[in-house]
Amino acid sequence: MARVGILTGGGDCPGLNAVIRGVVRKAVKVHGNQAVGFRYGWAGVVGGNTVPLDLDNTSGILPRGGTILGSSRTNPYGMDGDVEKVKETLAVEAIDMLIPIGGEDTLGVARRLSDDGLINVVGVPKTIDNDLSATDFTFGFQTAVQIVTDAIDRLHTTAESHNRVMVVEVMGRSAGHIALWSGMAGGADAILIPERPFDIDEVVRHIQRRHERGKTFSIVVVAEGATPAGAEVTTGGETDAFGHARLGGIGVFLEGEIRARTGYDARATILGHVQRGGTPTAFDRVLATRFGVAAIDAAMEGDFGKMVSLRGQSIVRVPLADALSESKLVDPDLYATAETFFG
Amino acid sequence: MARVGILTGGGDCPGLNAVIRGVVRKAVKVHGNQAVGFRYGWAGVVGGNTVPLDLDNTSGILPRGGTILGSSRTNPYGMDGDVEKVKETLAVEAIDMLIPIGGEDTLGVARRLSDDGLINVVGVPKTIDNDLSATDFTFGFQTAVQIVTDAIDRLHTTAESHNRVMVVEVMGRSAGHIALWSGMAGGADAILIPERPFDIDEVVRHIQRRHERGKTFSIVVVAEGATPAGAEVTTGGETDAFGHARLGGIGVFLEGEIRARTGYDARATILGHVQRGGTPTAFDRVLATRFGVAAIDAAMEGDFGKMVSLRGQSIVRVPLADALSESKLVDPDLYATAETFFG
Amino acid sequence: MARVGILTGGGDCPGLNAVIRGVVRKAVKVHGNQAVGFRYGWAGVVGGNTVPLDLDNTSGILPRGGTILGSSRTNPYGMDGDVEKVKETLAVEAIDMLIPIGGEDTLGVARRLSDDGLINVVGVPKTIDNDLSATDFTFGFQTAVQIVTDAIDRLHTTAESHNRVMVVEVMGRSAGHIALWSGMAGGADAILIPERPFDIDEVVRHIQRRHERGKTFSIVVVAEGATPAGAEVTTGGETDAFGHARLGGIGVFLEGEIRARTGYDARATILGHVQRGGTPTAFDRVLATRFGVAAIDAAMEGDFGKMVSLRGQSIVRVPLADALSESKLVDPDLYATAETFFG
Amino acid sequence: MARVGILTGGGDCPGLNAVIRGVVRKAVKVHGNQAVGFRYGWAGVVGGNTVPLDLDNTSGILPRGGTILGSSRTNPYGMDGDVEKVKETLAVEAIDMLIPIGGEDTLGVARRLSDDGLINVVGVPKTIDNDLSATDFTFGFQTAVQIVTDAIDRLHTTAESHNRVMVVEVMGRSAGHIALWSGMAGGADAILIPERPFDIDEVVRHIQRRHERGKTFSIVVVAEGATPAGAEVTTGGETDAFGHARLGGIGVFLEGEIRARTGYDARATILGHVQRGGTPTAFDRVLATRFGVAAIDAAMEGDFGKMVSLRGQSIVRVPLADALSESKLVDPDLYATAETFFG
Repeated sequence: MARVGILTGGGDCPGLNAVIRGVVRKAVKVHGNQAVGFRYGWAGVVGGNTVPLDLDNTSGILPRGGTILGSSRTNPYGMDGDVEKVKETLAVEAIDMLIPIGGEDTLGVARRLSDDGLINVVGVPKTIDNDLSATDFTFGFQTAVQIVTDAIDRLHTTAESHNRVMVVEVMGRSAGHIALWSGMAGGADAILIPERPFDIDEVVRHIQRRHERGKTFSIVVVAEGATPAGAEVTTGGETDAFGHARLGGIGVFLEGEIRARTGYDARATILGHVQRGGTPTAFDRVLATRFGVAAIDAAMEGDFGKMVSLRGQSIVRVPLADALSESKLVDPDLYATAETFFG
Repeated sequence: MARVGILTGGGDCPGLNAVIRGVVRKAVKVHGNQAVGFRYGWAGVVGGNTVPLDLDNTSGILPRGGTILGSSRTNPYGMDGDVEKVKETLAVEAIDMLIPIGGEDTLGVARRLSDDGLINVVGVPKTIDNDLSATDFTFGFQTAVQIVTDAIDRLHTTAESHNRVMVVEVMGRSAGHIALWSGMAGGADAILIPERPFDIDEVVRHIQRRHERGKTFSIVVVAEGATPAGAEVTTGGETDAFGHARLGGIGVFLEGEIRARTGYDARATILGHVQRGGTPTAFDRVLATRFGVAAIDAAMEGDFGKMVSLRGQSIVRVPLADALSESKLVDPDLYATAETFFG
Repeated sequence: MARVGILTGGGDCPGLNAVIRGVVRKAVKVHGNQAVGFRYGWAGVVGGNTVPLDLDNTSGILPRGGTILGSSRTNPYGMDGDVEKVKETLAVEAIDMLIPIGGEDTLGVARRLSDDGLINVVGVPKTIDNDLSATDFTFGFQTAVQIVTDAIDRLHTTAESHNRVMVVEVMGRSAGHIALWSGMAGGADAILIPERPFDIDEVVRHIQRRHERGKTFSIVVVAEGATPAGAEVTTGGETDAFGHARLGGIGVFLEGEIRARTGYDARATILGHVQRGGTPTAFDRVLATRFGVAAIDAAMEGDFGKMVSLRGQSIVRVPLADALSESKLVDPDLYATAETFFG
Repeated sequence: MARVGILTGGGDCPGLNAVIRGVVRKAVKVHGNQAVGFRYGWAGVVGGNTVPLDLDNTSGILPRGGTILGSSRTNPYGMDGDVEKVKETLAVEAIDMLIPIGGEDTLGVARRLSDDGLINVVGVPKTIDNDLSATDFTFGFQTAVQIVTDAIDRLHTTAESHNRVMVVEVMGRSAGHIALWSGMAGGADAILIPERPFDIDEVVRHIQRRHERGKTFSIVVVAEGATPAGAEVTTGGETDAFGHARLGGIGVFLEGEIRARTGYDARATILGHVQRGGTPTAFDRVLATRFGVAAIDAAMEGDFGKMVSLRGQSIVRVPLADALSESKLVDPDLYATAETFFG
C-alpha cells in the first residue's frame, strides 16, 4: 500500500475535480492505496494542510467546477524555509508519490522538487488556455470555448440597430487558442490574438467594408493578451497586482476605438471568470478522468518525473522537463482557415 | 378580411419573433386576415418598407432570438413630415389595424397616432427590464434573468484564491428587476439596484465582514443604473451617444473600488448584450405567444387603444394611456427577502 | 428560540433544496431558531432520523436538484403505531413547528396530524405537474417545461426523411400542464393531455393532412396520462407497482399506431426522470426561495394549518384544508390558444 | 471557375450545415467557384433537384442543426436507370467536382461513381456514432455525447426512493462510442455496448451489490445495439422497416428485467432523435468547418477519390477505398478505464 498525495495549483479550470476523482478511484479501488489531498496547492504541502481522500468524499464531484482541494499560487521556492517544510510534511504524511495538477508554475515546482530528489512526482497538466506544446489538449479548454461560443451565438441574434459591432473579450494572455476556436465556432468576423499584433486601422477598415457591403452587424473576438501593433497604444497586456490582465483592457479599448472611428454602436462583452467556472463539457470530463487514471498508473509503475498528455487518441507520458519547456501558439494554418470566414 | 400591420421597435428582447408568429397565425389562419410587417420599427412605416407575413415565412421563428422584422428607435413625431408619411404608408398598404410591439417610446408613438385618429392600434408591451406596472411580466425578462443566473452559477464554482469578489454587471438602468431576480436565483451576497443608491463604504464593509467570518468568496450583482449615494462619485448611470449606460461604468468602478479598499481580488463580468440575445426560455415563449394571439383578438373585436398584459394567469387588456404612465420599481418586500441571504 | 422541523416527501422536484435553504436561512439568521431536518420524508419523523440544519450545511444547495434530506412516500397513517412514533420523535426533538414540503399525500398527512392537534404545521406545496388549484405555480414545473422544450427544439432540426413524426412523451398523469406548456413553447403540431381523451383516428388524420399540405415533419407531445377515447385501447394510463404510469405506455403506443396507420417514420422520445432532475430554472429558484421564507414567517406568526401559495406576484397563505381539496386541470382557453398553432 | 456540387446523405448529424458553409465559403470566396446543392442526398442528383449555394444563403447556418439541403437514403445503384440519371444531371449542371457528406452508404455510392469514372469526388465522413476507423472523430459525435451527459447529470440528482435504477438508452447500433463516452462523462455505474454482449444476471448482481454496499442509486447506460449474451433473449438489435433499432427495445427490456429481478424501481429514459438534433457543440462546429474547407481544398488540388479525416490535430486525406473498409469499435483500454468507476 502506497500513500498518494494530490494537489491542485494555479487558476481554476473545469475538470480539476474529475482528475482528482480519477486519481483517487484508481488509486484506492484498483491499487489499494491511500490518498491524501493537500489544500490550496503547494501552500497545503508547506503548511501540512491535508484532507484524506476516499471513494466517499470524491463521489459526485465529477460534474462540479472548481476544485474540492482549493488552489493557490504559492511557490515553496519563493520563501526561505518553505522547501524544508515541504520535506517535513511529506515525511509526516508518509507520502510515497505526489500527483500535482497545475500549470507551468505548479508543475515547475514539482519538477524542481523531483530533481532535488525530494519527492516522486507524476504531473497532470492544467491550462485553460491550451497553450502547452506537450499535449494536444488540456481539460477545461473546450469548456471555455463552449461558454464563449454560447455567448457569441446569443450576440448574433441581437439586431436592434443598423451598424452594430460586438466586441467579445476572452481569456488568452499569451496564446489565442480560446479566441480562435470560439471565433471559428461562433462565426466571428474578426479574431484578434496575442500571436498577431493587430493594426487598429485595418480592423476598423475591415468592419467598415463589411458594413458598406450591406452587413449590419460584426462580431470581433479578442483575446485579453492581444495588442495593437506599434508602441503608442499600450492598453492590452497590462497586468494588475494579481497577475491578471487588467480587466476590460483590450475589450473596452476596442469598443471605444471602433465607436470613435466608425460611429457604429460598438459594445463590449467581458465574460471574465465565467469562462473558468461551472461544469466541464463531456469532452473535458473524459479527458480529465483519463488524465487522472493515467497519472496514478504511471506513478504505480514508478515512472516518475513525467507528465501525462494527450496525443491523438492516446494518453502518453512525457518528461516533465520537456513538457514545460515549450508553450504552444496558435497554428497559422488553423488561423488561415478561420480567416476564410471573416468576409 | 382585414389587413393587419405589425412592427417591432426599440431594443432586442427574446420573444419578439414568438409574438410576431402569434399575431400572424391567429390573424391568417383563424381570422382570415392578411398580415404586413413593417421593417425596422416606425422607420418602416415612415419609409413604406414592408414585407408580407404569412404562415410560411413565420414558420420556425418561435425559438429564434432577435426579430425578423428588424427594429429601430425612429420616432415619426421627431422629424417634420414623418407623420404625413406614416399616413401615406398606412393608406397605400390599406392597413386596418396595427400591432406595434415595443416599449415606452414605440408604444408612445402608437398611442399618439391612435389619439390623433390616424390608426387603430393594439399594443404589445416589450421591456427586457420588466419595469412596466401595467403587466406582471414582460417577455424576455425571464430569459435575461436565466442568462445572468447561469453566469453567476459558473462564477460560484471558481475558487482559486482566498479572498475573491466577483462583480456581475447586469441590465437595468432605472429598475433593478434583473439584478434582484438573478441575484436571488444565483445566491448573490449583495445586490445593488437603481432604486437604492448604495454606500460604497457599506458595501465594502459588508464584504469584509463576510470574509472575516471565514467566507473566501463574495458575489456582487449590480444593475447598470445603480449609483453610489452622494455626489462625489459619478461613474454609474452615465449614458453614451447611443443612450446606453456607459459600458463597464458601474461594474468596472466597483471592481476598482473593492480591490483598492480591501486588497481582495475583485473581478468584473460584464455580460452586455448577451443578456438580450438567443432563444427565449419556455416561459417567455408561452407569454409572447399568448400576447400575440391576444393582441390580434382584441383588434378583431375592435377593442383599440389598448395594450395586452399579464395579470396573474390571465392575459387582459389595459388602456394604452394607463399602461405607459407608470414604471414598475422593485418590490421592497422582495428585496427584503433577498437581503435575508446576503449574510 | 423555536425548533423548526423540515421534511421533503414524494417525488423529486427541482427547487426542493432552495426551499430548505430559504426556511433555514430565515429561521436561523433572522428568527434565531434552530432547524432540524427529517430524512426521507415522514419516514424520518417516524424513525427519528434527523439531521441538524444550519447556515453551513445549507450553503451552496440553491442550484442543486434533488433534496439533501431525501424523500419517501411513507405515510404514518398507513401503519399501526407509526403515529405514536411521530408523537415521540416530535417530543424527543422538541419540535415547535413543522414545515413539510410535498404534494397531496405528504401535506395530507400534515393536515391530519395538525387536525389531530399533534403538531403545528405550515406546508409548502410541491407538484412538478403544477396541478394544484390553490397556487398559480408550483416550483419545478417551469424547469420540467424547459427541459421538454429544449428536447423539442432539438427534434425540430432533424430532417432526414420526408415523412417523420416525433412523439414526445412527458410527465402528467392526471393533468396536462407540462404537455401544454412545452408543446406551446416548442411549437408542437398536436398536444394530447389527460383532460381530453384523444381519438387516434383523428390524430392520424391531422398528421396526414399536414403532410399532404407539404409539411414533412410533425411533432406530437403526449402526457403520460393521456388516453385514447373509447374502451378498446388500454395502453395509456396503466400504472406499475411503483404507482408510475407504465413507461413508454402511451408514447410507444402512439409511435406504433402512427407508424402502422400512416407508413410514416414515427419515433418516440421518452424523457422520463430527466424531467425531474438537475438545477432549477431561475424562475423556480426564486419561487422556491420565496416559499421557504414565507413558510417560516407564517410559522413564526403562529399562522398554522396553512400552506404558502403564489397568487399573481404575491405569496399568500391558504388553509391546508382548502389547498388540498381541488386539483387544477388545464385551462381550456390556453389549450385553445395552443390549438391555433397545430395547423 | 469550377462548379462544385454538394450533398448530404443518411441520418441527421449536428454539423452538416457547418460543413456546407465551409465548402461554399472557401469555394466561392477563395477559389472563385460556383456551388450547387443537391437536395435530399443522391435523390437530388438522380432527380436534378438543385439549389444554388452562395455566401448569402449559407450565412447564419453554422449553429443550426439538421441540413439545409435535406437528406435521404436513396442509392442510385439500387434502381435501374438511376445511374444514367446521375450522369445526366451532372452533365446538365456541369458539375466539375462533387463533395458528398455522408456515411458508409452515401460515400460508398460516391466511391463507386468515382471508380466508374463518372465524377470527381472528395468525401466528408459523417457518422454520429463515430464508428469510422479512418478518422479520430466525426462531427456530431461530441454533440450527441454532450446531450446524453446532460441527461445523465439530471438523473443523478433525483433521489426519491431508496433503490432506484435509471436505464438510459442511447444511439449506437454496432459500436458503443456514445454509450462509453457519455457513461464516462456522466459517471455511469454500468455501460453496456454492442461490442460486449452482456450477461443480464451479472448486470443485475452488480447493481444489487452496489445497493447492498449502501448505494441507493444506479445509472446504467446502454447502447441501442447492445445485446444480452446467449440466444434466448432477442430484444436488442432488432430493426424496423426504417432500418432503425426498434425503439425502446433494449432500454425497455432492461427496465423490465431489472425491476422484475431486483424489485428496485427501474426507470428508462429513451432520448431517441433528441441526440441527433440541435446546435452542434463548439468542438463539432470547428471540426465540421475544417472538414468542409479541407474537402474543397483537396478538390481544387485535383486530389480526388479521397475523404477528409482528423488525425490528431490535423486534417488529412485518406483514400475513399480504405476509409470505408473498416469500422471502429470501442477501444478496450478506454472501456477498462470506464470500468474503474463502475463500483
